[in-house]
Amino acid sequence: MSDFAADPSHPRYQSLLLRHRLEQAEKDGLLAGSAMIAHGRGEAYDYLLGERTIPSAHMATVQALAALRKAQRPVISLNGNAVALAGESLLMLAERLSCPVEINIFYRTPERMTALIGRLEAIKEKHQLEVQILGAEPNARIPGLEGPRANCTKEGIIDSDVIMVPLEDGDRCEALVAMGKTVIVIDLNPLSRSAKMGSITIVDELTRVVQNMLANIENSAVDEAFNNDEVLADALQHIATKFTSP
Amino acid sequence: MSDFAADPSHPRYQSLLLRHRLEQAEKDGLLAGSAMIAHGRGEAYDYLLGERTIPSAHMATVQALAALRKAQRPVISLNGNAVALAGESLLMLAERLSCPVEINIFYRTPERMTALIGRLEAIKEKHQLEVQILGAEPNARIPGLEGPRANCTKEGIIDSDVIMVPLEDGDRCEALVAMGKTVIVIDLNPLSRSAKMGSITIVDELTRVVQNMLANIENSAVDEAFNNDEVLADALQHIATKFTSP
Repeated sequence: MSDFAADPSHPRYQSLLLRHRLEQAEKDGLLAGSAMIAHGRGEAYDYLLGERTIPSAHMATVQALAALRKAQRPVISLNGNAVALAGESLLMLAERLSCPVEINIFYRTPERMTALIGRLEAIKEKHQLEVQILGAEPNARIPGLEGPRANCTKEGIIDSDVIMVPLEDGDRCEALVAMGKTVIVIDLNPLSRSAKMGSITIVDELTRVVQNMLANIENSAVDEAFNNDEVLADALQHIATKFTSP
Repeated sequence: MSDFAADPSHPRYQSLLLRHRLEQAEKDGLLAGSAMIAHGRGEAYDYLLGERTIPSAHMATVQALAALRKAQRPVISLNGNAVALAGESLLMLAERLSCPVEINIFYRTPERMTALIGRLEAIKEKHQLEVQILGAEPNARIPGLEGPRANCTKEGIIDSDVIMVPLEDGDRCEALVAMGKTVIVIDLNPLSRSAKMGSITIVDELTRVVQNMLANIENSAVDEAFNNDEVLADALQHIATKFTSP
């Protein structure tokens, strides 16, 4: 990614940087065909949020972090876009949480799995991280899903009690919730099925979420009064203002 | 595009078809690097509109059609995404309006121009259409814009009195308005600079707009009471409802 030459003072710097990471990842074979379109949808919602972490999303982020820290068997599920956009910081977070990551992609091909594992191993090497990377050899299936998208590992996703799923599709999110897990959803669209299904829903952009988690890792505590419906309602209200008071 | 095999009764058929057209166009070299992300942003707004033509958008469509029919020198500006998504119906519309089209792309390269002209010529041939295709040899510049994006033709964009710009960027839209033209904007985001700058703004998905124009071509009349601010306000209100009453 060393050829990214935009000026950090450019008002669109962060947005251009994320696009650049995706373009690079596409060249490297990490992404599904629909990855760019999905990112564009995310850009639209992030624009509506003001491209910043709204207070209710910050609250959900701290709650999610506390849940991951308190978990018996936490796991972070990673897909192509998540690795492309925030692979480095996600692995740093996993190390701080002593938590494995599991590559779990919707459009599973051997080539994409190999490319994703290669990218994560390179990040581990570069930053000397100790993180277990699961998913290369699935030995279990998520109940209620059909086809290769159900493939996962027993020691990772199946046996986890708390799972964080950045940018996850609604079907899989629903299947994980049905397994009784605490599911942490990161999704810019508060109207999406994933957002509505999540146990804790963070309506925020992935790279900001992970940075916020890394910054708050020492001082997060589970808030017993946390109400995910209120978090979602606040995000909807925040976006509605964009249209009612443009 | 003959390899698109989705079932037309699939609830996401139209959306999948548009994606397929873009993927094909990308392979054919018609698109800029940011085309897929731009389409994703459009998908997000179309979802918020309910993936249908709202009444105020239909009103703006009829007004735009009437303005094009009444114009002395109408022109339809085409970029990569517009050609990919609606090239056939746009050329049919241009023929019905006896109006030229001009290829006018933001990221202009000789390869993309050749690919776009080739695609349009193939459509003309296939449907035996009589439409002048401008833009291959620019001989003028849009005042107020820098770089290759300003290139255009005198007989097309420069001398036009009414210009339709589907999916146009804000800078160019503003420059065309500054030239005193009636600018018809087609944009799914009612908050975009293009949408706000337009003389007539159609907040709707391009393929639906062109179909609506073709269906109403015989019975459109300029409505002197038409108010573009009301059209935009209605679209904002329509989307806000999605967030306030989800």
